[in-house]
Amino acid sequence: MPRFDADLLCRMSSGILQHAGVPKGHSALQTALLLEAELRGVPSHGLLRLLRIVERIGNGVIDPGTSGAHEWRREAFLSVDGLKGLGPVVADRALTLISERARQTGIALAAVRNSNHIGMLGFYAERLAKAGQTALVFSTSEALVHPWGGRQALLGTNPVAIGVPTEAEPFVMDTATSIVSMGEVHDHANRGAPLQPGWALDEKGDPTTDAQAAKSGALAPFGGAKGYALGLAFGLLTSSLTGAALGREVRGTLDSHALCNKGDLFIVIDGPNAMLAEYLAQLRDAEPADGFERVLIPGERGRACRMERLRNGIPLADRVWADLQRLAKQAGIKGD
Amino acid sequence: MPRFDADLLCRMSSGILQHAGVPKGHSALQTALLLEAELRGVPSHGLLRLLRIVERIGNGVIDPGTSGAHEWRREAFLSVDGLKGLGPVVADRALTLISERARQTGIALAAVRNSNHIGMLGFYAERLAKAGQTALVFSTSEALVHPWGGRQALLGTNPVAIGVPTEAEPFVMDTATSIVSMGEVHDHANRGAPLQPGWALDEKGDPTTDAQAAKSGALAPFGGAKGYALGLAFGLLTSSLTGAALGREVRGTLDSHALCNKGDLFIVIDGPNAMLAEYLAQLRDAEPADGFERVLIPGERGRACRMERLRNGIPLADRVWADLQRLAKQAGIKGD
Repeated sequence: MPRFDADLLCRMSSGILQHAGVPKGHSALQTALLLEAELRGVPSHGLLRLLRIVERIGNGVIDPGTSGAHEWRREAFLSVDGLKGLGPVVADRALTLISERARQTGIALAAVRNSNHIGMLGFYAERLAKAGQTALVFSTSEALVHPWGGRQALLGTNPVAIGVPTEAEPFVMDTATSIVSMGEVHDHANRGAPLQPGWALDEKGDPTTDAQAAKSGALAPFGGAKGYALGLAFGLLTSSLTGAALGREVRGTLDSHALCNKGDLFIVIDGPNAMLAEYLAQLRDAEPADGFERVLIPGERGRACRMERLRNGIPLADRVWADLQRLAKQAGIKGD
Repeated sequence: MPRFDADLLCRMSSGILQHAGVPKGHSALQTALLLEAELRGVPSHGLLRLLRIVERIGNGVIDPGTSGAHEWRREAFLSVDGLKGLGPVVADRALTLISERARQTGIALAAVRNSNHIGMLGFYAERLAKAGQTALVFSTSEALVHPWGGRQALLGTNPVAIGVPTEAEPFVMDTATSIVSMGEVHDHANRGAPLQPGWALDEKGDPTTDAQAAKSGALAPFGGAKGYALGLAFGLLTSSLTGAALGREVRGTLDSHALCNKGDLFIVIDGPNAMLAEYLAQLRDAEPADGFERVLIPGERGRACRMERLRNGIPLADRVWADLQRLAKQAGIKGD
């Protein structure tokens, strides 16, 4: 894939968003999130999403000017109505407020509804962990995952990110609770590659390795019954505290026209931070199993990818680059 | 296995603990935890543990009289030194304090160190969820799990429990982040049954299905790289905030003589509780996959098991019953 300079992509994305009516500061936040996903090697949460965001603004289901309405239900419990704002803009404001509050209370929570897609959760966990605070981030999503022992998609991919400060780089893990993403299934379908057994069901609920058939079916939860239990718990936890929709009623993170009714949950802890680097070094230096080069710390690969892509550019699929050029042209921005 | 009446076992356990120097109220808490594990079908966290607790009291590594020393580091951050107290006693006091505090602040946390084994985490999550509060519970443990791609046990089984109130029974999930428990490996070894491929490594770090060999090896994390990332995150999170030991330095939940240096983390949220019952009913009624009788909600099976065992008695392994009888006799309690 051709590679593009991060600065160029950043300018293009910001310009496109501003042309669509996004205030400058908000366009920078949304662009930072999309760019960071590209840099870390998570293109499903990257610039691929830009066209949809622009369309959603045009359709009135994103209000690019708001950062939400905030109500402290209790001293450390912030309830946020996103007012159709951009996901990272609403999240940024909520995080700033609870991060500050946690300095006094030790722990604080933001429960966000009516906000748009917040992208890669690790983005937020890393921001807080870098500032010395521990963070747990949850978000719900459209029903794409079948319950363990079921045939039909009834759960979101319900991701989680956890950030913990260390003496060096923060520890940040970020994972969906599906075994693979629907983006990966689409990618296999595009390449005509088969899925691994156990990844997905077809529309009728039968196991399939045909990526094309899986697109209208359901993804398996990761780790069988345990992953199902965790994904369900994350979904219930988030929905219960935000009042957001659950399961098949969730809309608006994958389409261009529906109001986004999923929920986001942020917990920030301003606690003592014990030393962790020695233990992490032990893991990193542990003898690898056959077939593994070494033991990885979650987040490490993304960080290395980031360094490399800052140097050598970000690979973009032809379609994503074509869309970007088209949008840039409409916005009157020089696209290469 | 022969079955025993829950009331009889409750009286025996309480009497044995009191004979060992445990104050009456504390013996009731410890007994309730062990009994609840037996009732829910988790014997590895049940009365099997009683002998070790009595030995640990005798060896001075459990102080049965304390419920810990409590310091509010911040308004909603309770730091607890367990002072070698009984796990459920220290946990109970910490939970009472943060549950009350969360009513004012919306969310509160207890970080507990120097406490003993707190057993089945769902016990605590269920207590809070029944009282209308959302709970997250984490605990670290001895290194029994290998990192994904590693050969050696370097992580605890680092379990998590999440409790969410609903209009009906609370939702409670509780799972270790290992693919199976070491108790299950021992059980297979005792029965001469092979393990499933992928469950464990032997002492040298090679994959094995020999349960006997796995006892001195390492358990796999559940769900591959994702489960490893989650288990590690839970461990780091807990250790960071409690100052507890990590990995191979953890002692005292499986032996009779070492001070217990793992950590426990409790987060209680007193928030709004959206309606969840309809969604849970949808899951419960979903069409099952081939080979499954129906889709289960986490916690459901344990609850059904509890009802049945309250009626028909609790099955105990011969060795557990023999130990119990011996301890009861020493304590001067009528054991049958």
